[in-house]
Amino acid sequence: MNIIPGGVCAAKGFKANGIHCGIRKNRTKRDISMIVSDKKAVAAGVYTTNLVKGAPNIVTKKNISDGYATAVICNSGNANTCNANGIEIAEKMCKLTGDALGIPANDVVVASTGVIGQPLCLDPIEAGMNELVAGLSYDGGKAAAEGIMTTDTVMKEVAVSFTIGGKECKIGGIGKGSGMIHPNMATMLVFITSDVAISPEMLQKALSCDIKTTFNMVSVDGDTSTNDMVVVLANGMAENTEINSEGEDFNTFCKALNTVNTYLCRMIAGDGEGATKMLECKVSGADSDAIAKTVAKSVICSSLTKAAMFGADANWGRVLCAIGYSGADVDITKIDVSFRSKAGEIIVCKNGAGVEFSEEKAKEILLERDIEILVSLGDGNFSATAWGCDLTYDYVKINGDYRT
Amino acid sequence: MNIIPGGVCAAKGFKANGIHCGIRKNRTKRDISMIVSDKKAVAAGVYTTNLVKGAPNIVTKKNISDGYATAVICNSGNANTCNANGIEIAEKMCKLTGDALGIPANDVVVASTGVIGQPLCLDPIEAGMNELVAGLSYDGGKAAAEGIMTTDTVMKEVAVSFTIGGKECKIGGIGKGSGMIHPNMATMLVFITSDVAISPEMLQKALSCDIKTTFNMVSVDGDTSTNDMVVVLANGMAENTEINSEGEDFNTFCKALNTVNTYLCRMIAGDGEGATKMLECKVSGADSDAIAKTVAKSVICSSLTKAAMFGADANWGRVLCAIGYSGADVDITKIDVSFRSKAGEIIVCKNGAGVEFSEEKAKEILLERDIEILVSLGDGNFSATAWGCDLTYDYVKINGDYRT
Repeated sequence: MNIIPGGVCAAKGFKANGIHCGIRKNRTKRDISMIVSDKKAVAAGVYTTNLVKGAPNIVTKKNISDGYATAVICNSGNANTCNANGIEIAEKMCKLTGDALGIPANDVVVASTGVIGQPLCLDPIEAGMNELVAGLSYDGGKAAAEGIMTTDTVMKEVAVSFTIGGKECKIGGIGKGSGMIHPNMATMLVFITSDVAISPEMLQKALSCDIKTTFNMVSVDGDTSTNDMVVVLANGMAENTEINSEGEDFNTFCKALNTVNTYLCRMIAGDGEGATKMLECKVSGADSDAIAKTVAKSVICSSLTKAAMFGADANWGRVLCAIGYSGADVDITKIDVSFRSKAGEIIVCKNGAGVEFSEEKAKEILLERDIEILVSLGDGNFSATAWGCDLTYDYVKINGDYRT
Repeated sequence: MNIIPGGVCAAKGFKANGIHCGIRKNRTKRDISMIVSDKKAVAAGVYTTNLVKGAPNIVTKKNISDGYATAVICNSGNANTCNANGIEIAEKMCKLTGDALGIPANDVVVASTGVIGQPLCLDPIEAGMNELVAGLSYDGGKAAAEGIMTTDTVMKEVAVSFTIGGKECKIGGIGKGSGMIHPNMATMLVFITSDVAISPEMLQKALSCDIKTTFNMVSVDGDTSTNDMVVVLANGMAENTEINSEGEDFNTFCKALNTVNTYLCRMIAGDGEGATKMLECKVSGADSDAIAKTVAKSVICSSLTKAAMFGADANWGRVLCAIGYSGADVDITKIDVSFRSKAGEIIVCKNGAGVEFSEEKAKEILLERDIEILVSLGDGNFSATAWGCDLTYDYVKINGDYRT
């Protein structure tokens, strides 16, 4: 498997574009994106578990319930959530897109991201539709990735190539997500495209399984968004024999999907609102998969641990504290904790108690941007990884006046 | 019932003191406190639910398992948690205290608060014991309240007087808690003294019941501490007929205890690390007590809501979002949300969707220090209140380099 350029346009037969249409006031920010497959594609999706669901999520879920979709339309700057006319607006976005592309409205995946509870006016979208469609191209992945950004500071895209039955296949994806990110579920907007031929059932199965170890293991701030959505389109243009059951081809596809999703997870965590560091908590030696996941997520979500990491302070007591209140049944006296980064690795806690360590070395390790927090539970053979970021002044700044 | 001065020394027969003995480097900060009852007192306690338990918690629980205690010793600056010799050190603190006061070591309540995982050296405590005991006085409540402070910016004490069977009774308390505060349980250090005559069983019952609506409903940062403890001593010197069953006297006592605890909760929330505002989420119209509590706590814990309040931004979508992911089974389309403070009240969301409101008025309301977030679920007759604070730059600053 190789990492390749192209993002959502890496796979055969996918065009994309992103422009500024006027939903956002800042004219230099793209605020609407489109992705279109040359052929109707198999579609699968996973959505937020928040009871408050963005209107676009409801419409998208309905539209791809038949297992197929052709295009994605997504705006930033307004979440179209908690508005009395939300469903109507989301459906009109599909209709506008469908009319412009000459496809049925119910073959469109619609998504919105931004502030909650402010009516979304369709005028800019309607006015910009011609430009958006006219600009669709096979190398428009970056523009599309930019159009879905909110407080993101970096564009998030990745693609991989691999072979199935001798055919070259590709999966590419773009993601956005910076705040209001927390398991479970999906925790952000992610659109994945592939040219693999796969049945709707197997595509949904691959996605639903994969997010358990990827997007469900990311937390920026503990707030599960109302508009989370991960949607995959697979148009079959790689011409492999259709994957319609488990087996080698399905496993190859799942592995490639996992590579794309893990990459996006790390990017999203590292670009958490205000983040200066990407935190990766790797738990090993757990008695069950559930315990490993619970512990890893609890550490990543601890405000105190996150603030300590911002300060490059090896305050491991906060890691142990977060494990202790996670709800997982663990034996504290068997737990070891280490910090690791490019600058080295240092053990700070053994069997649940502190060990002497060089504060200087620890500081050097924690001053790096990518930090691993290694937790060994000494209790079994299960492991899990969760991703997050540090808690910084800028998180507070960004969220203290998000609407203004 | 009247609010009176005196804190933990308001009730008859309680002396207290707090001094700097040298656990903390800053010589202007008191770092050890003692509270002593003239007579052996009935004792009850509740403790952290964190699996990582401070050594003092374990020793205190054992010491008051017979239902009685005479004194409290508590240091700040070091939590004596996650240390190999923690239990031994906590027991020695009780022994030192007992010897100095001429009481058995197992009549001593011991507590520690501060950094986790650094061995606690007894030398300063041993050296300061004579001064601490010599300075005990019937108006030493404030000194004791100061000696248990860590990152607290204000001393927290309160007392009330009331009558039971014609006898004047008092309950007073001190608390500390600023960071690492989250349900469940106890979530901080609180010591309560009373001169009421009450049996050990009824005292424990009163405390265990009361914390469900008080200390378990406070969150500063979602991190449940390892050293949380609320201990009540009641020495019977008010000479009321001993309360040993439910009834009018017990209810009167519970009401007074609730007043003291609620007052301390509000003080602790309002003095959360870095806080500029005290947030009070009042949920009404819930279908059950559990739903009301879950919703109130979820709103109070939402980082995004907390950051919005810091910015005096009426971003009610975040409140609704936090209700949606709380796990409580509610009907979003029935929810109303209002903000209230001394400056007025404004409704911002009706039936789960935004209503037009004056941003100017909302700003004026949210610029106050004490903010109420009112949530009506329209689903039943249960209600609950939770307390928290805003998320600020200073929270990050305080916790970015707590140890240095």
